[in-house]
Amino acid sequence: MANTFGTLFRLTTFGESHGPAIGAVVDGCPAGVPFDMEMLRSDLSRRRPGQANTTARVESDEPEVLSGVFEGRTTGAPIGVLVRNSNQRSKDYEPLRELYRRSHADYTYDAKYGHRDHRGGGRASARETLARVVGGAIARMYLATQTSVRVTAAVTALGEISTERTIEAMDSERVWASDIRADDPASEARMREHLAAMKMTGDSTGGVVSVRVDGMPAGIGEPIYDKLSARLAGAMMSINGSTGFEIGAGFEAARRTGSTNNDPFVVEDEVVRTLTNNSGGIQGGISNGMPVIFRVAFKPPSSIAQSQQHATREKTVVDHLIEGRHDPSIVIRAVPVVEAMTMLVLADLWRMKG
Amino acid sequence: MANTFGTLFRLTTFGESHGPAIGAVVDGCPAGVPFDMEMLRSDLSRRRPGQANTTARVESDEPEVLSGVFEGRTTGAPIGVLVRNSNQRSKDYEPLRELYRRSHADYTYDAKYGHRDHRGGGRASARETLARVVGGAIARMYLATQTSVRVTAAVTALGEISTERTIEAMDSERVWASDIRADDPASEARMREHLAAMKMTGDSTGGVVSVRVDGMPAGIGEPIYDKLSARLAGAMMSINGSTGFEIGAGFEAARRTGSTNNDPFVVEDEVVRTLTNNSGGIQGGISNGMPVIFRVAFKPPSSIAQSQQHATREKTVVDHLIEGRHDPSIVIRAVPVVEAMTMLVLADLWRMKG
Amino acid sequence: MANTFGTLFRLTTFGESHGPAIGAVVDGCPAGVPFDMEMLRSDLSRRRPGQANTTARVESDEPEVLSGVFEGRTTGAPIGVLVRNSNQRSKDYEPLRELYRRSHADYTYDAKYGHRDHRGGGRASARETLARVVGGAIARMYLATQTSVRVTAAVTALGEISTERTIEAMDSERVWASDIRADDPASEARMREHLAAMKMTGDSTGGVVSVRVDGMPAGIGEPIYDKLSARLAGAMMSINGSTGFEIGAGFEAARRTGSTNNDPFVVEDEVVRTLTNNSGGIQGGISNGMPVIFRVAFKPPSSIAQSQQHATREKTVVDHLIEGRHDPSIVIRAVPVVEAMTMLVLADLWRMKG
Amino acid sequence: MANTFGTLFRLTTFGESHGPAIGAVVDGCPAGVPFDMEMLRSDLSRRRPGQANTTARVESDEPEVLSGVFEGRTTGAPIGVLVRNSNQRSKDYEPLRELYRRSHADYTYDAKYGHRDHRGGGRASARETLARVVGGAIARMYLATQTSVRVTAAVTALGEISTERTIEAMDSERVWASDIRADDPASEARMREHLAAMKMTGDSTGGVVSVRVDGMPAGIGEPIYDKLSARLAGAMMSINGSTGFEIGAGFEAARRTGSTNNDPFVVEDEVVRTLTNNSGGIQGGISNGMPVIFRVAFKPPSSIAQSQQHATREKTVVDHLIEGRHDPSIVIRAVPVVEAMTMLVLADLWRMKG
Repeated sequence: MANTFGTLFRLTTFGESHGPAIGAVVDGCPAGVPFDMEMLRSDLSRRRPGQANTTARVESDEPEVLSGVFEGRTTGAPIGVLVRNSNQRSKDYEPLRELYRRSHADYTYDAKYGHRDHRGGGRASARETLARVVGGAIARMYLATQTSVRVTAAVTALGEISTERTIEAMDSERVWASDIRADDPASEARMREHLAAMKMTGDSTGGVVSVRVDGMPAGIGEPIYDKLSARLAGAMMSINGSTGFEIGAGFEAARRTGSTNNDPFVVEDEVVRTLTNNSGGIQGGISNGMPVIFRVAFKPPSSIAQSQQHATREKTVVDHLIEGRHDPSIVIRAVPVVEAMTMLVLADLWRMKG
Repeated sequence: MANTFGTLFRLTTFGESHGPAIGAVVDGCPAGVPFDMEMLRSDLSRRRPGQANTTARVESDEPEVLSGVFEGRTTGAPIGVLVRNSNQRSKDYEPLRELYRRSHADYTYDAKYGHRDHRGGGRASARETLARVVGGAIARMYLATQTSVRVTAAVTALGEISTERTIEAMDSERVWASDIRADDPASEARMREHLAAMKMTGDSTGGVVSVRVDGMPAGIGEPIYDKLSARLAGAMMSINGSTGFEIGAGFEAARRTGSTNNDPFVVEDEVVRTLTNNSGGIQGGISNGMPVIFRVAFKPPSSIAQSQQHATREKTVVDHLIEGRHDPSIVIRAVPVVEAMTMLVLADLWRMKG
Repeated sequence: MANTFGTLFRLTTFGESHGPAIGAVVDGCPAGVPFDMEMLRSDLSRRRPGQANTTARVESDEPEVLSGVFEGRTTGAPIGVLVRNSNQRSKDYEPLRELYRRSHADYTYDAKYGHRDHRGGGRASARETLARVVGGAIARMYLATQTSVRVTAAVTALGEISTERTIEAMDSERVWASDIRADDPASEARMREHLAAMKMTGDSTGGVVSVRVDGMPAGIGEPIYDKLSARLAGAMMSINGSTGFEIGAGFEAARRTGSTNNDPFVVEDEVVRTLTNNSGGIQGGISNGMPVIFRVAFKPPSSIAQSQQHATREKTVVDHLIEGRHDPSIVIRAVPVVEAMTMLVLADLWRMKG
Repeated sequence: MANTFGTLFRLTTFGESHGPAIGAVVDGCPAGVPFDMEMLRSDLSRRRPGQANTTARVESDEPEVLSGVFEGRTTGAPIGVLVRNSNQRSKDYEPLRELYRRSHADYTYDAKYGHRDHRGGGRASARETLARVVGGAIARMYLATQTSVRVTAAVTALGEISTERTIEAMDSERVWASDIRADDPASEARMREHLAAMKMTGDSTGGVVSVRVDGMPAGIGEPIYDKLSARLAGAMMSINGSTGFEIGAGFEAARRTGSTNNDPFVVEDEVVRTLTNNSGGIQGGISNGMPVIFRVAFKPPSSIAQSQQHATREKTVVDHLIEGRHDPSIVIRAVPVVEAMTMLVLADLWRMKG
């Protein structure tokens, strides 16, 4: 396994959904950064299930800071944070011991490790993302001492329904006021209906998270293998259920000509900018000072409240209805995780820029 | 900068387009691997310009193996390979000294390094990808001693024109027989017309490379930050001009429901497989034994034979027609680079699996 | 800070002496390794103070395994282990807030981080080594599934008193039966007297730990920067208070001629061995199958029960007698830490050998 | 193999003694550093054999800078440097094909790689150190833009003969004026006699290199695994033939008491310093602003002009006199290599300090 993210600003995570706790260790955060416990709590509560339109499990997710913070500031030492799992009901999972759930990681974990924790996915569970949010919050505290970078992310597509607003217009406050992390009241209502339909039919839906980073300084990204675009792509595609990543015009750029896709330069107040932002704020893997813009696709959750065929360890195929509460979408809960991974990439590349 | 790719099977590269040479160092290739000089030459010739529909510059690209190979086999020592640049005409580039070419990396390199090599892009030039192809060829030699993995890549979209063939039907021989790396004779003719139109108008076009990896063993990928999907995404988005990555159903999965997107299991000859392959051969970041399938979007080249507005180091905007031969598309030459990066990811994750 | 050790078998540690806990995360331990909780407890108890001739503080050091182990075996997921600090009496340390204790890391931490945890050394405290012992115990569990490597370490010098026994004769059981980790009953009595004298005078003493690794397979070590000798040296010199490292004949080899220092080859039972072992079982940075032999020097603890001159944050020099229990030697408690770091180096290089 | 040194300021090396060239790639050197070609040539000439008291082979060692430097300054891109091997006489080495030379790495390389380059040691040859000197020279150029650190190294012991001068008195100019890199005219004459005796008898001698780093800023070193002492130890023990490392009082500290070994603080001109320097300028793994002082032991070269018993691949033991010119000591040629590795460690930790 590879459970450390980053080169200089590094997050190491551990813990399974049905073990005693999830842990995060941030190493490489400089000393003297004001540690904002309320920001950490707030970020954790944003990803917590038990909110509208996510699963009903109640998790308190109170973080315990074990090290690296003294008298309200980071000390330069590694920051260990633990969040206990309050809701370990292993009995529920006994029927799953011999089952490879369809489109889950059960089969691949067994193929790789020969031994698996069948209680709800172990390390492949979405609960793992909690530690990413811890890391992202600390990255944000660090970045706040260095630059005025702000990350805004929102659910901009849910199934066939897309927002009508541009990524430039997304508003962070509006997003967090929306229980489904939608930016656009017009499409939000239809997204809500779609979610209700999914719940009704026991089905699930995919979606897209769009991200805009404002206040980006130019010069961030380390060619040629740690380009900003490459690091963001790797970070996003490490999140559970992500299936696609595009920056700027993305797949649309593949359909265009150079004369239409190139971003014209303008000079405003002695600053070189571009009129359009098809490059998503990145050229040659380095930020150009324009907003960084990207999108992440998420598949519909594999767990649905319908009987489906699954495989077994005995290599048979069986019909099975998996009990339990199923989230009709992961994309809603992915929003703070996408934000956290963005912060971690930026903090690491910031420290590497030298 | 960050010019080393990989953890155990590592490629370090150096060299600029207008310096004396491009170099690649592969460290972590085990001893005893038969070194296939012809494969290396052949892979390099596949990415070489001077072929139909790519720029007309003639580069010989003869690799010199400097170390790590003895009596036809790798020794376990780092393999250094040098390819001289035969065509360094720096005078052509003097007018570019003060120019930031539109949508090029000129501005971002200057913002980051305060000092740049204006002769054709320096490290941001496509010539850098030559060293990736060297690394990919050696990765392929290594993988051939371990597994029967085969990578097939093709241009499946060029501008608005897409192949009609499925990714499952792509055929490697057909692709390499096509000078535009197209898989499908039907759409190939239209792609060729599109390229001709681009040349005629001095414009350029984007495109998509699709990839299928056959013979994938199950169990490759290192959760949670070096998932196979994450490593592939990071690798592909580090290639010049790439703007998007999707695995399996990709962005289409975001529009679907779980009941339609989940891949039904089947058991054939005691092997667990899936009927469909919407997951692209990966679950939880680990290969499941099905073909790994992904797509990479490339933007249209920024250099076009039309007068465009560019910025200057003096922070003005000027109209300028950049002289020289311009490639109407990078996606054709990207095919062997995408293959090489795929091989490098697989070789590294294979060595990490332990 | 850099709190991760290793490339593939990786230990990440966190926690300060006066914070709530010390933590260790082992990533890269393969799945299926029997997890021996008793071995872990036993190793922790060996390094614990509260034993004869070490400081009298009572620490229970009960490890809590938070992840990565299921039904008695490792799962391949990161193994998080927490040990609570039971004895946080911060009030004792208030007088130290402005003091840079002589030959302690107080000054250098302040110079580096501008902000320090004055309560007993923070991250520079010997309590940090507890996490190394956790990592070493898990490395030992892993190595036991791969090879029959056994590490024996002992205190072979304490101040001017040296063991009369050769390193080849050291016996692990005898060492652990000795409360001062001495191998040789003859010199042990004199070492004990020396410790008593140190306590009496409120002084402290340095010493040497000698190590022998039996059952070493040939071929371990990764030239040229991760040679076995280089990795062992780096590991040992990262332990608190270490001041020297030598392998095989070490500094004595510098005084010799080649004709006397070279190790003659012999062939026994089809195995190539050497008659002498001046090279310490390593040639060219790679193990040769002979026992690996090295020594680590430790300085006398800087904290002594005598009034000494210390510096202050106000840049004055003051006489001060630091209250509290002072360990007359760190070398005794270093023995299990040296063993643990040896195990971690071997586990990592074993996994890297490919 | 592991042929990359460093985390942010990274040296990757390749090349064997009897291949076409030795190469070095420095990645992570910031842009804008004046590139001093004469310093590079001068450093290479200092390590070159063909000088008095080292082997008589003539090597020209002219470096070719392939990338990363433009108009006299570094560009931020990786700096590739190649030095051709002018003297590849492989025929000499045919008798060695089946021989494991005593105390050489022949046996261990074969045990590890199953396949070896018998022509003079391949990657285990001292010629590899040339690439370290290239890296060290570039590290020095970088450090000169950041700090006034100066490294002085000298041969302070050769066999039984030791300098009478203290490490504080070593003078760099005097050392480089001495063809045996000795600091002290008194002992130098005796060292010279000892070398003559070694040549006469076809034997070889070990020795010690002592190092002093002046102008060290406080705060360099990354606890707890990349402490300055740990990084220096790992770097030095990666050099061919090194057998021991000690910092400050080193092994002597193990014999002392705390009351004599502790370094009293003094405050001079508002700067906190220490009266003595038993800690070698490092506390808790971080530099304290005093000179960093350490020593490295080197064994006598294994190749001697005497008939010795060697082993064979057929597992027999044979008497053999190895033809060729043998260096009576490696310690003289090790001086610039020790300096280079010191510079590389400092450049890397300087960049990591953030």
